[in-house]
Amino acid sequence: MGSLKSEEALESNCTNPLNPDELRRQGHMIIDFLADYDKTIEDHPSNASTAGILGEILCSGFGVVGFSWVSSPAATELESLVMEWLGEMLKLPRPFLFSGGGGGVIHGNTCEAIICTLAAARDKMLRESGEKNITKLVVYCSDQTHCAFKKAAQVVGINARNIRAINTTKVTEFGMCPSSLKQAIATDIKEGLVPLYLCATVGTTSTSAVDPVKELCRVAEEHNVWVHVDAAYAGAACICPEYRGLIDGVELANSFSFNAHKWFLTGLDCCCLWVKDSAALRQALSSQAEYLRNKPSESKKDDRFEVVCKRNFALVCFRISPSVLSKQGLSTGYLSGDASIDNDNIKDEHTVKEPVTTTSNINDVNKRLLEEINGTGQVFMTHAVVGGVYAIRFAVGATLVQERHVRLAWKLVQGHADAILRDRP
Amino acid sequence: MGSLKSEEALESNCTNPLNPDELRRQGHMIIDFLADYDKTIEDHPSNASTAGILGEILCSGFGVVGFSWVSSPAATELESLVMEWLGEMLKLPRPFLFSGGGGGVIHGNTCEAIICTLAAARDKMLRESGEKNITKLVVYCSDQTHCAFKKAAQVVGINARNIRAINTTKVTEFGMCPSSLKQAIATDIKEGLVPLYLCATVGTTSTSAVDPVKELCRVAEEHNVWVHVDAAYAGAACICPEYRGLIDGVELANSFSFNAHKWFLTGLDCCCLWVKDSAALRQALSSQAEYLRNKPSESKKDDRFEVVCKRNFALVCFRISPSVLSKQGLSTGYLSGDASIDNDNIKDEHTVKEPVTTTSNINDVNKRLLEEINGTGQVFMTHAVVGGVYAIRFAVGATLVQERHVRLAWKLVQGHADAILRDRP
Repeated sequence: MGSLKSEEALESNCTNPLNPDELRRQGHMIIDFLADYDKTIEDHPSNASTAGILGEILCSGFGVVGFSWVSSPAATELESLVMEWLGEMLKLPRPFLFSGGGGGVIHGNTCEAIICTLAAARDKMLRESGEKNITKLVVYCSDQTHCAFKKAAQVVGINARNIRAINTTKVTEFGMCPSSLKQAIATDIKEGLVPLYLCATVGTTSTSAVDPVKELCRVAEEHNVWVHVDAAYAGAACICPEYRGLIDGVELANSFSFNAHKWFLTGLDCCCLWVKDSAALRQALSSQAEYLRNKPSESKKDDRFEVVCKRNFALVCFRISPSVLSKQGLSTGYLSGDASIDNDNIKDEHTVKEPVTTTSNINDVNKRLLEEINGTGQVFMTHAVVGGVYAIRFAVGATLVQERHVRLAWKLVQGHADAILRDRP
Repeated sequence: MGSLKSEEALESNCTNPLNPDELRRQGHMIIDFLADYDKTIEDHPSNASTAGILGEILCSGFGVVGFSWVSSPAATELESLVMEWLGEMLKLPRPFLFSGGGGGVIHGNTCEAIICTLAAARDKMLRESGEKNITKLVVYCSDQTHCAFKKAAQVVGINARNIRAINTTKVTEFGMCPSSLKQAIATDIKEGLVPLYLCATVGTTSTSAVDPVKELCRVAEEHNVWVHVDAAYAGAACICPEYRGLIDGVELANSFSFNAHKWFLTGLDCCCLWVKDSAALRQALSSQAEYLRNKPSESKKDDRFEVVCKRNFALVCFRISPSVLSKQGLSTGYLSGDASIDNDNIKDEHTVKEPVTTTSNINDVNKRLLEEINGTGQVFMTHAVVGGVYAIRFAVGATLVQERHVRLAWKLVQGHADAILRDRP
């Protein structure tokens, strides 16, 4: 096995945390170390692939921030595309694909995928049967189901007494027996409980047992029970025609997941989840925060501008001051009432190209300013609405930002403000 | 900016997904690409550090599987150690540190950290006040709190009507007003609701506003409300003495988190969470699955062994057959009843060094066999208990496994079985 060079070799006198020459020097050192390590892989435990490792390196190096479309459009589009390809390789029924009204998303692990689908199923059921029923919801698995299921059920607030682990035996090779499920559901209904969700496993953790997906789905659909098929381990194998039969019946299920970080040789964590009813998922999990909205979506002394609220750290919230426009009879933009957590008072669908008229208010002017600034591609700012005021957010804390960058950004802001204010009739 | 060589250069005729020479060739290419990219970083958006990127590369290259202590002891120990260091740097009160009875853990993001602490607070409260109260639980934040809080509350089953976003105004620079919180709590109690959890933010998303932690904690403690301090953005700054005062009062809170993937320059995702009452967290989230247990510490024709259940994929579950021992009057290990999801019928604290006597049963013999196999460090197998039978799990699906590896492992198993069976009095 190769050894990583002495600590001195990795140290440097460079205080810049992102010096390209240091990244190159130490990067090559680490690649050699990893390649040497892989030459003697039999002496060590490891489970990934060259493509998986290189992909991670690129992702780290680019500093991909994938938490919303606008923070990394390429990552989001690629995720959707790859999930569609994978779904097709698995021959998932069309309703699970984006092209069929459903769609796929990458989660860290199966527990997350189950938490999200459970929350979607729970909220859907509670909307139909009443909120008070939350204590009556029952979820089903087998005694071979991964413990992540129990944890997920606990997290979303399912009463621990309402988690049914159907016993399995050697007779069914430790697969869940549909008639046992039927009986459990019947008993629960008789007791006034509300059957909610079934987790069927293709390839259990203990023995890689296979639950009979189609038969279980038939039982579930009689009672409007959401069925999730967890094929974390065996899903990748089901791409092979000789194994695809093991997930027959998935067309009757509501969601399906498998872990690419097993036989698909990506690094941890990579759980691929597909759902049919993506609206239920969005309803349970969406939050319409103003600063997450986007259109696919400093004197710094200039009297036309004002700092909207106290600057505490490296974020400056500013706007074109209402005083500039109030002389021309424009609204100052202060709305009655404060911004709520679901702040909706600025509409994304506002047409930015309309001329600034006396009926526009100061918020619209600042919204247009932000869109023009970002349109240049030279800086990227965001916005927030606080106390009814539309503020432009300029975060100055990136790794390599120097004063000259801030000055350039400020010039850009001023230039666009000039044009917008000149543009008024 | 450097350009990644043409697709042909990245292609290879190598079908081995982990060929060390390909890893080396393509790895060096990508490091050069990233270093060139960083030379022209001003033309691109990025936020990480050399150390962060190199750490991610090592982690990917080693294929670190960090989901339990035994799957990656080094990663788990390092996580605990680093969290203790970070906690000390932040001058967190001792009850938040491992050395003080609490402790830190790395989450992907703040939403996860809030979900876990909310679930802990919820279950603690429901144990005290009764399960039916789940629909009455109320959580508090301000209209400036990150939308992850609302999502987290939805996920753990808090009624959407019971999420209170306290209004903020310019008067308090958009920080949460303690008297407004006090009033909201009083109103809820009057209406028969149960105050549960407060999320205070140090450095809000919209304007980096700071909630007055100490004053809010004082209000919360009167009503036994769990306080989480979310310092996702500003937490790193609070390491500096001149900013530490902003989290004064954290000694009265229950949990605290900040995101190292912001000013700490690690790659996404890295949210550091500390809690005082780690037992509450474990109670809400633990799942005692048999295959996750470990002591910190598989003819193949050999009639002494049997395959415990049908092999579906690349996992073989086997054991020393009870027939070998039943002739000597030992129990076959079949227990009454089937394995449940909380299978507890095999105790980890069983002393492996005791001689195999006629009172031991077949499960104990197989447990000892597994421990001796793993003790060699040459292979790593796990176990499961299904239908009361202790089975050794041999997963053969790793990337580079060839038949010779399987044969070697089998010889190892047989050798240890020889010794154990010979060892009987």
